[in-house]
Amino acid sequence: MELEGCSQTAPEDTGLHEACGVFGCVATGDWPTQLDVAHTICLGLVSLQHRGQESAGIVTSMGSNDSLHRQKKGMGLVGNIFTEEDIVRLRGNIGLGHTRYSTHGESDTSNVQPFVVETLHGLTAVAHNGQLVNARTLKRKLLRHGVGLSSGSDSELITQLLTHMPECGEPDGANWVGRIKRIMHETKASYALVIMNKDKLYAVRDPIGNRPLCLGKLLPAATFSGKKILDDSEVDGWVVASESCAFGSIGARYYREVLPGEVVELSKKGVRSVYMAPKHKQTPPALCIFEYVYFARSDSVFEGQMVYMVRQNCGRQLAKEAPVDVDMVSTVPESATPAAMAYAAAINRPYGEVFTKNRYVGRSFIQPNMRLRQLAVAKKFGALTQNFIGKRIVLVDDSIVRGVTMIPIVKLLKAEGAKEVHIRIASPPIKYPCYMGINIPTHQELVANKVPIDQLADYFGADSLQYLSVEGLKAAVTEGIKTEAESGHCVACLTGDYPVEPDW
Amino acid sequence: MELEGCSQTAPEDTGLHEACGVFGCVATGDWPTQLDVAHTICLGLVSLQHRGQESAGIVTSMGSNDSLHRQKKGMGLVGNIFTEEDIVRLRGNIGLGHTRYSTHGESDTSNVQPFVVETLHGLTAVAHNGQLVNARTLKRKLLRHGVGLSSGSDSELITQLLTHMPECGEPDGANWVGRIKRIMHETKASYALVIMNKDKLYAVRDPIGNRPLCLGKLLPAATFSGKKILDDSEVDGWVVASESCAFGSIGARYYREVLPGEVVELSKKGVRSVYMAPKHKQTPPALCIFEYVYFARSDSVFEGQMVYMVRQNCGRQLAKEAPVDVDMVSTVPESATPAAMAYAAAINRPYGEVFTKNRYVGRSFIQPNMRLRQLAVAKKFGALTQNFIGKRIVLVDDSIVRGVTMIPIVKLLKAEGAKEVHIRIASPPIKYPCYMGINIPTHQELVANKVPIDQLADYFGADSLQYLSVEGLKAAVTEGIKTEAESGHCVACLTGDYPVEPDW
Amino acid sequence: MELEGCSQTAPEDTGLHEACGVFGCVATGDWPTQLDVAHTICLGLVSLQHRGQESAGIVTSMGSNDSLHRQKKGMGLVGNIFTEEDIVRLRGNIGLGHTRYSTHGESDTSNVQPFVVETLHGLTAVAHNGQLVNARTLKRKLLRHGVGLSSGSDSELITQLLTHMPECGEPDGANWVGRIKRIMHETKASYALVIMNKDKLYAVRDPIGNRPLCLGKLLPAATFSGKKILDDSEVDGWVVASESCAFGSIGARYYREVLPGEVVELSKKGVRSVYMAPKHKQTPPALCIFEYVYFARSDSVFEGQMVYMVRQNCGRQLAKEAPVDVDMVSTVPESATPAAMAYAAAINRPYGEVFTKNRYVGRSFIQPNMRLRQLAVAKKFGALTQNFIGKRIVLVDDSIVRGVTMIPIVKLLKAEGAKEVHIRIASPPIKYPCYMGINIPTHQELVANKVPIDQLADYFGADSLQYLSVEGLKAAVTEGIKTEAESGHCVACLTGDYPVEPDW
Amino acid sequence: MELEGCSQTAPEDTGLHEACGVFGCVATGDWPTQLDVAHTICLGLVSLQHRGQESAGIVTSMGSNDSLHRQKKGMGLVGNIFTEEDIVRLRGNIGLGHTRYSTHGESDTSNVQPFVVETLHGLTAVAHNGQLVNARTLKRKLLRHGVGLSSGSDSELITQLLTHMPECGEPDGANWVGRIKRIMHETKASYALVIMNKDKLYAVRDPIGNRPLCLGKLLPAATFSGKKILDDSEVDGWVVASESCAFGSIGARYYREVLPGEVVELSKKGVRSVYMAPKHKQTPPALCIFEYVYFARSDSVFEGQMVYMVRQNCGRQLAKEAPVDVDMVSTVPESATPAAMAYAAAINRPYGEVFTKNRYVGRSFIQPNMRLRQLAVAKKFGALTQNFIGKRIVLVDDSIVRGVTMIPIVKLLKAEGAKEVHIRIASPPIKYPCYMGINIPTHQELVANKVPIDQLADYFGADSLQYLSVEGLKAAVTEGIKTEAESGHCVACLTGDYPVEPDW
Repeated sequence: MELEGCSQTAPEDTGLHEACGVFGCVATGDWPTQLDVAHTICLGLVSLQHRGQESAGIVTSMGSNDSLHRQKKGMGLVGNIFTEEDIVRLRGNIGLGHTRYSTHGESDTSNVQPFVVETLHGLTAVAHNGQLVNARTLKRKLLRHGVGLSSGSDSELITQLLTHMPECGEPDGANWVGRIKRIMHETKASYALVIMNKDKLYAVRDPIGNRPLCLGKLLPAATFSGKKILDDSEVDGWVVASESCAFGSIGARYYREVLPGEVVELSKKGVRSVYMAPKHKQTPPALCIFEYVYFARSDSVFEGQMVYMVRQNCGRQLAKEAPVDVDMVSTVPESATPAAMAYAAAINRPYGEVFTKNRYVGRSFIQPNMRLRQLAVAKKFGALTQNFIGKRIVLVDDSIVRGVTMIPIVKLLKAEGAKEVHIRIASPPIKYPCYMGINIPTHQELVANKVPIDQLADYFGADSLQYLSVEGLKAAVTEGIKTEAESGHCVACLTGDYPVEPDW
Repeated sequence: MELEGCSQTAPEDTGLHEACGVFGCVATGDWPTQLDVAHTICLGLVSLQHRGQESAGIVTSMGSNDSLHRQKKGMGLVGNIFTEEDIVRLRGNIGLGHTRYSTHGESDTSNVQPFVVETLHGLTAVAHNGQLVNARTLKRKLLRHGVGLSSGSDSELITQLLTHMPECGEPDGANWVGRIKRIMHETKASYALVIMNKDKLYAVRDPIGNRPLCLGKLLPAATFSGKKILDDSEVDGWVVASESCAFGSIGARYYREVLPGEVVELSKKGVRSVYMAPKHKQTPPALCIFEYVYFARSDSVFEGQMVYMVRQNCGRQLAKEAPVDVDMVSTVPESATPAAMAYAAAINRPYGEVFTKNRYVGRSFIQPNMRLRQLAVAKKFGALTQNFIGKRIVLVDDSIVRGVTMIPIVKLLKAEGAKEVHIRIASPPIKYPCYMGINIPTHQELVANKVPIDQLADYFGADSLQYLSVEGLKAAVTEGIKTEAESGHCVACLTGDYPVEPDW
Repeated sequence: MELEGCSQTAPEDTGLHEACGVFGCVATGDWPTQLDVAHTICLGLVSLQHRGQESAGIVTSMGSNDSLHRQKKGMGLVGNIFTEEDIVRLRGNIGLGHTRYSTHGESDTSNVQPFVVETLHGLTAVAHNGQLVNARTLKRKLLRHGVGLSSGSDSELITQLLTHMPECGEPDGANWVGRIKRIMHETKASYALVIMNKDKLYAVRDPIGNRPLCLGKLLPAATFSGKKILDDSEVDGWVVASESCAFGSIGARYYREVLPGEVVELSKKGVRSVYMAPKHKQTPPALCIFEYVYFARSDSVFEGQMVYMVRQNCGRQLAKEAPVDVDMVSTVPESATPAAMAYAAAINRPYGEVFTKNRYVGRSFIQPNMRLRQLAVAKKFGALTQNFIGKRIVLVDDSIVRGVTMIPIVKLLKAEGAKEVHIRIASPPIKYPCYMGINIPTHQELVANKVPIDQLADYFGADSLQYLSVEGLKAAVTEGIKTEAESGHCVACLTGDYPVEPDW
Repeated sequence: MELEGCSQTAPEDTGLHEACGVFGCVATGDWPTQLDVAHTICLGLVSLQHRGQESAGIVTSMGSNDSLHRQKKGMGLVGNIFTEEDIVRLRGNIGLGHTRYSTHGESDTSNVQPFVVETLHGLTAVAHNGQLVNARTLKRKLLRHGVGLSSGSDSELITQLLTHMPECGEPDGANWVGRIKRIMHETKASYALVIMNKDKLYAVRDPIGNRPLCLGKLLPAATFSGKKILDDSEVDGWVVASESCAFGSIGARYYREVLPGEVVELSKKGVRSVYMAPKHKQTPPALCIFEYVYFARSDSVFEGQMVYMVRQNCGRQLAKEAPVDVDMVSTVPESATPAAMAYAAAINRPYGEVFTKNRYVGRSFIQPNMRLRQLAVAKKFGALTQNFIGKRIVLVDDSIVRGVTMIPIVKLLKAEGAKEVHIRIASPPIKYPCYMGINIPTHQELVANKVPIDQLADYFGADSLQYLSVEGLKAAVTEGIKTEAESGHCVACLTGDYPVEPDW
């Protein structure tokens, strides 16, 4: 499966889309801190850009009672939204950021996060990754209380829920942890949140842990050269991020995951767990398995294991379940490379490249005549003909969604001289919609629903095609888990078994 | 060596830059042709984008006597310059395009090619890749004749030379081939040109063939599905391009190279060779060897061999010259992958990935404090730690220019747990400037001039470092040549032996 | 006083600023209507552009139960925000628009009106001109109810108040008029509102009528040529606007004003008054007198009289109170022209021009040296020297706020040969802040507070200076009123007597 | 006649267009000079913006032998092209600028002036206002010499002619005055030029003086407050501009006109006349009379008289030739105001305003239905109904070109209650094309050619219409001339008598 490229123009929308990346940062020192909070958030968002390319925003604060929040939001890529001047203007020793891909059709500036509201207890900012399974019920409840909602987003919903707690009574009005607990009580999934008020960040993960969230400590510059760091009092600050891949470029070291149902407070004084939702039989952990298969950057770590290793496991498992006798193992660049390499090693055949990728594709024109329409795939991929002519090839891909590019890819390889083209998919067929934050094409558009699995090879013009089994995928994901916490994964898009049912 | 990415903001300028890509297209049919000439050129330029990302332009013509040329030029990437409306407006059955990286410091719209001038014999448009070794002399000559030059570019120079032939006399004034011959007589290198007048394109390659140029035939759409094509009368049109990688996405089939010193005419009636410069002992063919090593897209074909295969040869040759005992062979993504894979196979060690690349890097800020400055490389590359921890690694790269990113890369690998890091470069040290169109940093900036070769491993913090020899590179390049024409390669930047001396 | 020009760059901020213009439109016919609602609103906003140049927005609806609102908002001038495509996309037979000058320091897209929220009773859109005198109290009330406020604007406040009526109970929940009544009860001033829900617009003017609002009927195209129109059933639609100057370019005829404290419903079926707030002794009408003096476009009609005529009255009254023996009466172009001409006629001296205005001023640079700084006024105005050399001049201006341009203007006139320069201001000194929607510089910046009135002539370098008296201004405003409704005007910025006290 | 407004979008093209404004500046001091040359040029161009709004450019130089020229050119208004950074970057103590309205259909960046070329004798920059009557012949001559011309502009033509002097021979090659003389010999009209080389500017006016050009001295800042300036050695620098209206905002005092056929050298050392073309009977002075009637800013001075005064003369003369019995004299804002006021005074009737102008008109949409099309004029002008209802009005305009807006204007006035509407035009009918730089609509589009003069009142729906006579206009223009030099005016567009015949 092809992750959409960095072109700023509309991608040919063929795959799955993650909705969001969240990031928060607090400096331990006083202003002016060694740490540049806004710059750190900006770099963090750049590393989370693969989780959303439509818009981004940063909000910072000086962390004192009466301080104004400073914010900048915009459409497009992080690198184009925030100018040098913005970063300077976004003063503060605490802040949060968000990068977003719209799960709804219409892109609109009014939905750009973080969402900031004034409340009786100060300004509050919220960054959210996920989608609330009972959004309808919650929205109706808020509307009935007379709150007007100005954007359609779940983020505004969560922000208003957080604010709107008439039953709290004035006494614990400023009790933000209490407010967060109530949200956890009212909605099970899915959310990974970073909430900022005056001088604290709260990192919140829903009780089933559907979206990832982890903590990192910002090392002093002196330690970058390798000096050991002794204790937390020496850190420059703390960060929370959707994925640990955000830590490298900001000088942060991975600390730990926020656990399913946990609320972690980050402040000047450090991090501390302030709440852990009680465990329920009905809602065991259910981390989205596609974070491993496709969404996450391969250097991120979930449950103690690096995503890259899991992808290799998938390839290895696939080789066990569906070997094939070929001359060469390859892939469509570039997300499935680890799976393909591991598959090749497992079947003891050479891994080789069959395509070079044009990294400057840009937008497509509505083509004025038929002549060029069928060549679109060749705009993106150049065939390395002399490297595969006359050979039997197996293409390993990580997943297939609509399957629209597989047909011309197989055709291109055969036209250029491949003797056989086999397809192996390192995950099971995607058949069901996601109600928890992943933008999956409609039922009819999913190729696994459109074409019987045993006819897919023919449909793609390939010599054979096999998917990894659900059990195989689960095995690949769990074999390397190195966390003591209870784990579990959501495979609803593969099986239709939803960990929490939506209210519609 | 890292090819600069597709971000639209200023790259960290660490490497070599190719100056230009040229492209021309002529339709065989009458207007309105099956073939969309402007769209074809635009797609061709997208495939040549790696040769220049600063600006681009397209000029088209209806090919009749009194027709206006239509043009659009702009700064930036092809995909952002030409809108759907532009492509529609650029009517015509003949045209040419250009994509450019400035070899001079200042970027300026007045230098954007193709260069179009009105002459006594109609409008003429010129697209040029290369740099004239005797530009000074030629310029002085033109100025002495009283021609004012409005841009500093060699392109304008060639265009005015083409136009300015007072000694031609009126009789053969419109004799464009005659004019081109004179240019060939006046300047030996380097130029790959596409020249358009009324209804013809001329593809011109300098006598030493320093810059590549090849021809393709545009197949009718019907043949895309595999039907054989019988003869040239069935083609939809003809194209000329700097590299054959431009052919795939436009439905063109590789026809042949323009030979060193050859002038090929492309018109409605087809292609024909109209001139071949006489061979001189002093100026044998000298194709820039870095087209193989680094510039060209790996699916392009020169001298009958695919660039990808030559890069594999380089890796294999390097393994012969400089093997090393390691656990894993890897590379810095992504230009040296074929060399690294071939090296791995040759020393019989596994090839594996040590980095994932962030494809959304964007611009860098002038960093306000020291804290983040040393982490810049981690913004671009995420370490796949669990894939290499505790291992001995050899990094194979295709070339080293300034060497500025190698230091933090080695440091990052070691900090993340690599036991040893060895470096092998699949080409010899770059030591000398190029006068023929490649933008090489100054003598002092080239790391091979700054640090003695035997101290480079230390300088980079690596456990060992070795380059490929000049002979090894030559062998790798020549072993697969499948052309009957005489061949030869320019290695001046490696040895200081220039095929033609510049006039300064 | 100089109204800021149409340059898109930041004006030199020397004067008063009106905060907003509101506009609403409903078509009487069914979709597709003869009337283009979005285009009509866009043209209406262009005519209200002088009331706010920072941002604008339009929201339209098909007027049926389940229809989506369509909206477009943007920063800048109306003519640059709405493209042809936007106007086509903004389908609907009902809609409203807003143009805005920020009264707060920071410009931000999140404040751009109309404000749209989802409520239990459908989507609601609100456009607001004015400033709530008890915003603090209202905000605190909303926050206490647990509503988070995402923008600092009074508009959001009013929208949430409208939505948030827990005491309403479910029965009359959809009773929008009831909701509007409650707002009128909770806040006396200042607001001119256009509220849209499903299929109706409500035009609301606060009980003191501080901001203007009037109704117009859209004539069928056939009547444009002069044919009489018989009754309301023949109209194409109805509009509501801050000023009647918006009617000319959309083919609307002035119908009547919305009265202080009145709620008028506009729908497919026509207009009807649905509520009239009971009269209170404490809050008699108090239309902002600066609408007459400066803000309104001179062709607008308030209280039955054209603003232009009132400005002439001011000039005439000023001539009575403060005549002067001069050779020529003039003005600084161009807002005070009617006052100046009337003054000239009244003192029986010729009116003439002393300046031509450069209409292409553009932004100012932060000037690198002192040389050009003192010449800024000459960038804007060219002296018509030969028209006034050797003459005694009186400059009539409509008002003086900071007085920063008057000094160089007098200096320029004298340097170019004016024998005497007298100043007459057709309104009294501005001394107090406005809490009802006008952006007045701080107390210290107002020249009337900075320099004793009797020293102002010296301060400006003029030979004499006189203001119109408060009574004179009131007389000029009331002499031509042709409305039977009770009238009254707010002169708080001149006298400090506020019709309603603010809550801070 | 309505001068096109400052909106950045395409104007409704109804009138005449001046092609260009030129400006040059040289500082007398050494770098860094008190004088900011680039900023001065930028301000000068802002004051010449009415002469061309399509594009602008500035070129500066340090004035030494080997110095690079710095330049910035762009499309749009001066205020939007040059940023603060540009002005800082454009270092130098000599420079020139240009602002341009395209006389040809297509707007193109390659035509933006000043035109800069490298020559044997250094870089040369040229700014040109005018159009060469024998451009065809000159172009053919250059092409025959083998010079390729890259833009279609007369400016490039003049620049290449200046450069291309093969017959000069090397000895006097650097003799720029000699080169300019030759140009004067080769082409009689029309051109006002500013030419820059190394350290000198040349201000050149064609032998018939068709386009205006004048000199100013830049006063030291100290003199701005009124101190007398003693001699030229005290000036900060010298400027040359198309119109003297450019002097006010830069602290320059009007010095004198460049005379027809004169070449003035401006350098560090001051100004000196270096050539005066011999007088010919056949080519007496012929300053474009429409500079007085319409193009020039009213505060500019030609031939010793301020344009504003000439326009008043025209109004007075018109009153003599074509009085009318009315209640009120008015105009369509705002170019004909001086003529209208003078007409009013001459017929002893009050001058009053009938329209207010919307200064925020912006672009027009291609209107989707007929309803709003006929109201376009009301978008631009608001009727001051109460100021004219029941009155007999005469509208004085300066000229009529296509006459397209006059019809709806008269209709609007009558619909709003004007009893009679008479039209008086303060210049004669425009009937012939201009070959010397003014963009006049085609013969058929000129209303004076389309409708017999005696039917024009009917055509416009007016009660009467009269033009000023050619003799009347000449008298109005000459009565105030205060120059000893021979004067004369081109009235070819009114009479068809061209001072120099074009070569086509």
